[in-house]
Amino acid sequence: MTALRSGRLAVVGAGAIGLSAAREAARAGWRVTVYDPAPATGASWVAGGMLAPVTEAWPGEEDLLALGLDSVARWPEFARALSDETGTDAGMHPAGTVVVGTGSGDRDELNSLAGYLESLGRPAQRMTGRELRRLEPSLGPDVRGGLSVPGDPSVDNRRLLAALRAACERLEVTVDERAVTEVREAGGRVTGVGLADGTGAGADAVLVAAGAHSSALHPALDGLVRPVKGEILRLTRRAGALPPPSRTVRAVVDGRPVYAVPRVVPGHGDLVVGATTAENGFDTAVTVGGVRDLLRDAERVLPGIAEYELTETAAGLRPGSRDNLPLIGRIGPDGMFVATGHGRNGMLLVPVTAAAVAALLRGQDVPDAARAADPRRFAPVGAERS
Amino acid sequence: MTALRSGRLAVVGAGAIGLSAAREAARAGWRVTVYDPAPATGASWVAGGMLAPVTEAWPGEEDLLALGLDSVARWPEFARALSDETGTDAGMHPAGTVVVGTGSGDRDELNSLAGYLESLGRPAQRMTGRELRRLEPSLGPDVRGGLSVPGDPSVDNRRLLAALRAACERLEVTVDERAVTEVREAGGRVTGVGLADGTGAGADAVLVAAGAHSSALHPALDGLVRPVKGEILRLTRRAGALPPPSRTVRAVVDGRPVYAVPRVVPGHGDLVVGATTAENGFDTAVTVGGVRDLLRDAERVLPGIAEYELTETAAGLRPGSRDNLPLIGRIGPDGMFVATGHGRNGMLLVPVTAAAVAALLRGQDVPDAARAADPRRFAPVGAERS
Repeated sequence: MTALRSGRLAVVGAGAIGLSAAREAARAGWRVTVYDPAPATGASWVAGGMLAPVTEAWPGEEDLLALGLDSVARWPEFARALSDETGTDAGMHPAGTVVVGTGSGDRDELNSLAGYLESLGRPAQRMTGRELRRLEPSLGPDVRGGLSVPGDPSVDNRRLLAALRAACERLEVTVDERAVTEVREAGGRVTGVGLADGTGAGADAVLVAAGAHSSALHPALDGLVRPVKGEILRLTRRAGALPPPSRTVRAVVDGRPVYAVPRVVPGHGDLVVGATTAENGFDTAVTVGGVRDLLRDAERVLPGIAEYELTETAAGLRPGSRDNLPLIGRIGPDGMFVATGHGRNGMLLVPVTAAAVAALLRGQDVPDAARAADPRRFAPVGAERS
Repeated sequence: MTALRSGRLAVVGAGAIGLSAAREAARAGWRVTVYDPAPATGASWVAGGMLAPVTEAWPGEEDLLALGLDSVARWPEFARALSDETGTDAGMHPAGTVVVGTGSGDRDELNSLAGYLESLGRPAQRMTGRELRRLEPSLGPDVRGGLSVPGDPSVDNRRLLAALRAACERLEVTVDERAVTEVREAGGRVTGVGLADGTGAGADAVLVAAGAHSSALHPALDGLVRPVKGEILRLTRRAGALPPPSRTVRAVVDGRPVYAVPRVVPGHGDLVVGATTAENGFDTAVTVGGVRDLLRDAERVLPGIAEYELTETAAGLRPGSRDNLPLIGRIGPDGMFVATGHGRNGMLLVPVTAAAVAALLRGQDVPDAARAADPRRFAPVGAERS
């Protein structure tokens, strides 16, 4: 395809991925419209905000680990630039992560993770419960041991969204709150987007960044992304209650994962506790069973939160791909791009995804680590790979 | 004092008590203004809506039982009249209550309640767990036995509030959203109310119905009412989940009381689960510990709610009196009345309280059962009892 500098770009989806890509495109001279019936309220709004390439690592997912490590390295500069540009703190919190276990089965899982990280040459520091409590006094007596992973920081997802929106506004990106129903094409090229009201809007290029809703927008994306529901809680420390941890705490409690991410800026909740995982289609109900599990497991690890205020419950839909790698690249007709399928790693992968989209819009190659995320890896056997 | 028909009445507090009293007064010809900075959003809005004179009965509180029985007998006609008057269903749900226990200690407590009710000549039907599950299939296997109490129905408190507001509007009751800070008096008679903005409003009579906030409004009320916090949850049945019980379910789980009140009208939540009890001043934070206890205990009794949506968490402040009886009557300067201190029984006691206020405004005696609620029972020794 031809690079189309200064053309019209339609971005479908005003989450962290869509907004950060829109910002890059606008900086490169594109006239950008971001379409979203409810900007910045989906999975990006609900997210915990862990930037966790290491503690989310899983044997067999080395491409995802490499992508995450590339992106986490970009985060400090990404956040700094965004903050400078907008005068708004982008919300990055540099403190790392502790991964803790309670029962003996949980310890086995932690040992596996530690061994795996060592085998990758990324050793994590193994710690006893007592050592962990010296680091994070809010950890309760049921914590028997764990790992310290200083390289996995976090971001206040809502501050990030606010900063991205401010940056887009400054760059004269248009936000259009009409719902997009399809990417339109003619003669093998995108022509724009179709809208729920039956009308359409022309564009020279279209970026599908609609998270779990992406698959419905073009036949080339059919079946590539599915919704993976996650429930989270936001807790606020009350007078007299113990302080929250200063690091992200990830735990395995009786085999169930739970995390607690501190928020350092007042007014944004003191602790985000997540996250359940369920695949029920486009259901975003917060369930009794989900909240019960999160509260029980989080209290096992951080007993002082019993005195915290439960200020919010929410559910979001992670865009799950078939292989847990995102889909970042060209797919379908000329001029169509996709940036979705980020699963649990959306916040982490914002900088590398934005950089990859910027490269694609310039007609250049994506960063090396993002090559494995080419969406055409799922192309039907025998299909053309342009 | 002199009856002041057709005078100006200031009602402080637009909860269920204040609004129902305002309605009675307006029907009797008073020009009524109800003051509340946030009408119908306090304890009445948060309430579970049990009309439970029997299952709330406690040895030593026979005056309260008599008052509750008087009021529950008034409820059907009260609800019917209110519905007819406004064309709005007042929300009464005639199905009764089952009281259930799980552990053996809980069974002992239930046996005490059954024995006490029998001693009062109000026998409740003792049932096995199997019999209870036949009545309410949503009860789980941990329920070992209990009582059926058909005479304790419930009301959808939010429908009630809507109906009362409609009735007041129809009767040209004014709702003034300025905050009242004090009852004003001169020469031993009320002159009106003082407002937070420093101004005042004249009135010939003042009814203090400000719930837990009542004590601050006049020195005669000082120390008579205190806030007793209660947390509740609202659950909504989702597709595929088991139906809620048709009766109110009250349980004692490991010694902790929990209740679940079904809502029969869609859009008002399918089940209200309550209620914690805490005395921390005017704190209305919903706590992690409170929600955890309510979910755990309610699930022990009604396991199917795990699949329900948790649609709301809230906390309200019950107005607690020193002896658990409300304060209904004259107190302080001539022309000042009070209707507060209803504790856990506010919804139940709405009709008898409204009737008592109506009688007082006519210069008549309150209903017999309400005589024990005379607020002057707390008058300092030697003080004048007019």
